[in-house]
Amino acid sequence: MTPPPGPQRGGAMRELTVLEDAALLVRDGVIAWVGPAGEAPRLPNTAGLGTVDLGGVAVVPGLTDPHTHAIWAGDRLADFEARVEGVPYEEMLARGGGIRSTMRATAAAGVAELVALARPRLDALARSGATTIEVKSGYGLDFGAELRMLEAVRTLQTRVPATLVPTLLIHVPPTEGRTAYVRAVCEELIPEVAHEGLADAVDVFCEREAFTVEETRAILTAAQANGLRVKLHADQFHALGGTELACALGGLSVDHLEASGEAQIAALAASQTVATVLPGVTLHLGLPAAPARALVDAGACVAVGTDLNPGSSPLFSAQLALALAVRLNGLTPAEALTASTVNAAAALGLTDRGALVVGQRADFLALHSPDWRDLAYTLGLNPVRDVFVGGQNLKEMTL
Amino acid sequence: MTPPPGPQRGGAMRELTVLEDAALLVRDGVIAWVGPAGEAPRLPNTAGLGTVDLGGVAVVPGLTDPHTHAIWAGDRLADFEARVEGVPYEEMLARGGGIRSTMRATAAAGVAELVALARPRLDALARSGATTIEVKSGYGLDFGAELRMLEAVRTLQTRVPATLVPTLLIHVPPTEGRTAYVRAVCEELIPEVAHEGLADAVDVFCEREAFTVEETRAILTAAQANGLRVKLHADQFHALGGTELACALGGLSVDHLEASGEAQIAALAASQTVATVLPGVTLHLGLPAAPARALVDAGACVAVGTDLNPGSSPLFSAQLALALAVRLNGLTPAEALTASTVNAAAALGLTDRGALVVGQRADFLALHSPDWRDLAYTLGLNPVRDVFVGGQNLKEMTL
Ligand SMILES: [Zn+2]
Ligand SMILES: [Zn+2]
Repeated sequence: MTPPPGPQRGGAMRELTVLEDAALLVRDGVIAWVGPAGEAPRLPNTAGLGTVDLGGVAVVPGLTDPHTHAIWAGDRLADFEARVEGVPYEEMLARGGGIRSTMRATAAAGVAELVALARPRLDALARSGATTIEVKSGYGLDFGAELRMLEAVRTLQTRVPATLVPTLLIHVPPTEGRTAYVRAVCEELIPEVAHEGLADAVDVFCEREAFTVEETRAILTAAQANGLRVKLHADQFHALGGTELACALGGLSVDHLEASGEAQIAALAASQTVATVLPGVTLHLGLPAAPARALVDAGACVAVGTDLNPGSSPLFSAQLALALAVRLNGLTPAEALTASTVNAAAALGLTDRGALVVGQRADFLALHSPDWRDLAYTLGLNPVRDVFVGGQNLKEMTL
Repeated sequence: MTPPPGPQRGGAMRELTVLEDAALLVRDGVIAWVGPAGEAPRLPNTAGLGTVDLGGVAVVPGLTDPHTHAIWAGDRLADFEARVEGVPYEEMLARGGGIRSTMRATAAAGVAELVALARPRLDALARSGATTIEVKSGYGLDFGAELRMLEAVRTLQTRVPATLVPTLLIHVPPTEGRTAYVRAVCEELIPEVAHEGLADAVDVFCEREAFTVEETRAILTAAQANGLRVKLHADQFHALGGTELACALGGLSVDHLEASGEAQIAALAASQTVATVLPGVTLHLGLPAAPARALVDAGACVAVGTDLNPGSSPLFSAQLALALAVRLNGLTPAEALTASTVNAAAALGLTDRGALVVGQRADFLALHSPDWRDLAYTLGLNPVRDVFVGGQNLKEMTL
């Protein structure tokens, strides 16, 4: 069961191909042949070549989780409890909670500690079906801490089977000296990250309490000048113009979109920029859901992510993100699969994965059941039996 | 971390006891001592006595799932897809879908097939932390099929480590001959089920499209005359008076309550009947959530269940039901834990479990983390590391 390769938009998101009794040939981590098992090419009798019988269960492309903040130290359990008990946000901050508590703990941690903390989270995402995972910085209080977060991603790539895609996130403005901070981000941090190859893209949190559209424009423009791709956290609470900016700049994706209206939906539908929705935030915080149904109907290219983070989305499963997108954002199962595979990969600038066709990476999932729709249907149990990364079963990989 | 034993109502649902550095002594499947590890009684050096170091993680009581329809044949994947694609319910029925497709498939299955289908579902619930699980009949088209469902529960009890509690559910009225059907339920089915000891309680689906309040009263009265406890599916779509009836009859629980208003909340608060909420249905169908917050504030005894079933709640985790009750029904983490332990047990008439105090069953969970709130916080990953049933680790049990 597969969408076509490359980003899919609008009605094309529903057009999946289901192959019955299929077989798939992997060579050098890439799909070399796929088709009816009866027509499979004969393998030469050579050492190193193996055949695996998946027992008739459904096979789907590996998922891409295009939006995580999987690296953090400390926890937000007291915040969670206080919020649902009705404690005002200001009092939570006064108790030392909120995002700045995560930033303090993360900034105080060394790379090795960040790696040790993030690894089980990334392993959980991989077991849930994510064979490609974006990981953002953004909890560093200073540039050193930001660089340590990105170095942690680099180290994690040697310990985690999924492909990790690092993003520099400019997340929280300083309480003083914003202008100098933004200038330093543009003139020091971004060039260094680009020079060291520590991130593929730059992301900004464009929101009333975070960065303005003009600050965002300066940062994204600096990113592009340094050869980095750009993306945006926008329209989470207020549609300030960030979505339109990212579309105009040719951004990879705009993420959140809970507050997007007709103008933002139209901008996304008219652009190549992927609209990434994050249903974990909707569930965890009880906030409105992003208008994924309207986005697809308008012709946009929609992706789904977990937004895994300790404050607003403790969602450790790419499968559950997909399943929630059906319940909370109005996607059909087929659209949700496309959103979590080829479209989520496109949100990272990757067109070499997410479809079970010749030439794509051999990242695929074998479910427990013969019906692929179980991937979207099942709640509270992982319907993914085996995760294959580059043709290798995760259960048989040692890293 | 534990609630007090027995059902807890209103503000008492928040009063948990947290013991730091605790130890727990199990004898014959029952908690014989609990307290600070430094004060633990010395064990005689006798064969068969063992000490397990849980490594400082949080320990909570085993959960009770007080509402499941875990036995079914067939699947509802086509219904799920059609519904989210916007196909009208009437057309789904015309396609052969809906609850009657589950009833046809279940009625056509023998006991052995029902056992084989249900076992992995119950195992999943157990791994998610449910050490006691209610299982309803209700998909039988005729009495023979109803009895096979209850026989399947009896067989499953020999294969599944959790305690199973069987309920006879009078679920769907026949399309013709309702009066004769209700009379036969009262005069034939209930006496036989009681005589064979096949169920502990009788449940009725009291709703406009199902049984009327008067039919429900006849069935529940017959159940009580045959020595069975009673409970009710009520107020799911319309508050018809079922809740008030069940409270007046001293029912164990009223379940669903999405359409409950002030009168129903007051009736539950003034009764010993447990109010059981089912957030999986809210998430899966996108329907309103039951007013658990208002029920607790009014002084009711609230429980949480999965309602595991193929049509309206494919939720295979008691932990996720607990976590969803915080997000969707407004319970605090402490209330949700009480709702999923002592209160859920009380909804089954059981007061011997759900609290980590001397004399209670040694059903408890060791989490992955040292903070019990991870049980309510975590989405998409099972925070339960080890499940102990009667003091035995599920991972070490062979059934
Ligand atoms: Zn984010
Ligand atoms: Zn039910």
